[in-house]
Amino acid sequence: MALIVQKYGGTSVGSLPRIHHVVDKILKTRAEGHQVVVVVSAMSGETDRLVALAQKLSITPNPREFDVLLSTGEQVAMALLSMALIDKGCPARSYTGAQVQIRTDSVHNKARILEVEGSKIQADLASGTVVVVAGFQGVDDLGNITTLGRGGSDTTAVALAAALQADECQIYTDVNGIYTADPRIVPYARQLSQVTCQEMIELASQGAKVMQIRAVEFAGRYNVPVRVLSTFKEGSGTLIIQSLHKDHSIVSGIAYNRDEAKFVLRGLSDLPGIAAQILNPLSDAHIEVDMLVQTPSINGATDLTFTVHKRDFNQVQELLENSSKTLKLDKLEGNDQIAKISLVGMGLRSHPKVASTMFHTLGVQGINIQLISTSEIKVSVVIDEEHLERGVCALHEAFQLGKEPKEVEIN
Amino acid sequence: MALIVQKYGGTSVGSLPRIHHVVDKILKTRAEGHQVVVVVSAMSGETDRLVALAQKLSITPNPREFDVLLSTGEQVAMALLSMALIDKGCPARSYTGAQVQIRTDSVHNKARILEVEGSKIQADLASGTVVVVAGFQGVDDLGNITTLGRGGSDTTAVALAAALQADECQIYTDVNGIYTADPRIVPYARQLSQVTCQEMIELASQGAKVMQIRAVEFAGRYNVPVRVLSTFKEGSGTLIIQSLHKDHSIVSGIAYNRDEAKFVLRGLSDLPGIAAQILNPLSDAHIEVDMLVQTPSINGATDLTFTVHKRDFNQVQELLENSSKTLKLDKLEGNDQIAKISLVGMGLRSHPKVASTMFHTLGVQGINIQLISTSEIKVSVVIDEEHLERGVCALHEAFQLGKEPKEVEIN
Repeated sequence: MALIVQKYGGTSVGSLPRIHHVVDKILKTRAEGHQVVVVVSAMSGETDRLVALAQKLSITPNPREFDVLLSTGEQVAMALLSMALIDKGCPARSYTGAQVQIRTDSVHNKARILEVEGSKIQADLASGTVVVVAGFQGVDDLGNITTLGRGGSDTTAVALAAALQADECQIYTDVNGIYTADPRIVPYARQLSQVTCQEMIELASQGAKVMQIRAVEFAGRYNVPVRVLSTFKEGSGTLIIQSLHKDHSIVSGIAYNRDEAKFVLRGLSDLPGIAAQILNPLSDAHIEVDMLVQTPSINGATDLTFTVHKRDFNQVQELLENSSKTLKLDKLEGNDQIAKISLVGMGLRSHPKVASTMFHTLGVQGINIQLISTSEIKVSVVIDEEHLERGVCALHEAFQLGKEPKEVEIN
Repeated sequence: MALIVQKYGGTSVGSLPRIHHVVDKILKTRAEGHQVVVVVSAMSGETDRLVALAQKLSITPNPREFDVLLSTGEQVAMALLSMALIDKGCPARSYTGAQVQIRTDSVHNKARILEVEGSKIQADLASGTVVVVAGFQGVDDLGNITTLGRGGSDTTAVALAAALQADECQIYTDVNGIYTADPRIVPYARQLSQVTCQEMIELASQGAKVMQIRAVEFAGRYNVPVRVLSTFKEGSGTLIIQSLHKDHSIVSGIAYNRDEAKFVLRGLSDLPGIAAQILNPLSDAHIEVDMLVQTPSINGATDLTFTVHKRDFNQVQELLENSSKTLKLDKLEGNDQIAKISLVGMGLRSHPKVASTMFHTLGVQGINIQLISTSEIKVSVVIDEEHLERGVCALHEAFQLGKEPKEVEIN
């Protein structure tokens, strides 16, 4: 008998027939002899409906009341799911974040889980009851309802799994698992049987929106075995593991991102503090900078290049034009027709040839690299947006990601 | 400065423009220097939507989970109202029944309030905050969410007013107040400036569905001054008072009910226990009997007449046919084309002529009285349904209910 935490997202409980389907999956797990704790999101569309209501009343809805409002979405879903389970003869009990004491800080709309009190759940499980917990929400020290931000149900599930020392945390979604690349771009992309937490974080932040990053970090920190799998198709999904297995691939997957825009400041005086002078107004305006590269100085002048989210393009343009008045600067270039491609893999750090193979592959395709940034387990390049699909496919081919790791040799 | 509890029903907060209207009313009360606690129902239609969802999943939804589901309706409304208040610069905070500790018993779907913890609210009020509380819901000793049954928000408001020792509990509805008769039947019906709790209970249970009976009882028990008034029209509404003022009318109003059906058992052997033998199967089937009259025995035979709700007509017919096999009985008559008219007034007990004036008035109209039942402050008669409107109008005229009490003389 194992203790399994299953998280079902909004699409999985998006209609009454789908709730019945989830009931069947839970009953099957239970019939296999396991104890089950279920975490549910709001039915798909419900959160958007509530957000729209709030925004019609207030341009900046009060954060505390916004959380009170949003948290009802999961409460509806958990009650319906529990009813459906009980109707099938399976004892079930639902709990809100406050009821089961998912304690968070008081940062409304993006609270962080501090502690989970598992005793109530343990008692129910011991009596053979399926426990259904509202995802995405918690309660602060003063009894205020908090929410964890979009995707927060994943974190709820992982936190519960950690607190209950569950044997596995299963994240049910509308994809079959994690792939070597987006199957819409690379039809022969292969589903990964396992990835490490670190790879998963890079893949997620790079655009593979399968699971919330914070939840993956949480899983890594508390050593929770997480499996991502499909609600709608049978299969064993992708297991997110803590550390590298011996036959783990060098490159696990390719992520991409079309949501960034690039700015180049050319011929900047290379003085101490110059980068801060340019970037401070951006951080003051809560604009996140992703990639950032400064070229070596030539004759006291340097080029600074960075990327931001596309939605911030106009605002950044304005801020830079303001700053540039007081800066010595040859030229300011902005480009929002770019895309980022990233190779992700635990093996990258010990295989420097991966980066050069990447650059060579793109070069052969005639795709110009505008910017490069690397981390321990990732190499990212910025290219013209129009070459994105071709670039991803060429790299998938070059690194033989369609094959099982054992069959691949990189020299 | 007074402390005022205002309850807004589902129609009052049924749309975003209506929520804005309620905000204006609250701000006006606050501008007059009062402290305000607001109790809200779910937006109209929302509870029905949730009930329909549950019933599609389960024929008999689990009561605990049903409460978890239904309670989200008020939670949405309280969050939206608080947001709208804050957006207008008015400090506001919403609380669920669990957050503000509206303690109830554990009878799901129709829980009773045991205790209300007012300290949190008092602290907010002291800091100038408008407190918005979810109506209709509470929490039991184990932390389970409970609901009070339809109309329960009225009880929440009265219970809060009692716990906070509020100066007035205002129940905002879609009617202007309590009338001497249904204005749809009697166009010149007069709005009452005040009624006693007892009269209000009789008027409510007789069909004037303005306020939940349990809430009126609560107001009487804890001596809470309650005012019923319209959200949509200006006016001072009807004040529900504890005891009779000196110029209180003898007859306050006329109530009616079309929802009953009548059964007559003729020529019943007048033996001890015979009524119980007939009525026990009904109470076993949870069927409520309203009026019940047994005629004096003639030659050891008697007639038993009673009324039940129309929806129970067929079931009662069957039960009686079963019983009648073992009873000596001349005839069983059922009639669901009846209506009940009731005169209600604190003065009735000391003015026996009221009843005879009532019977005479109906007689002059050629309306036959099938059944009479009286209580301290009420006289009810059953007549043919087709004569209902005519009967109500004639009585309203006979007792001069269109005039202020001071002008009326009954000899």
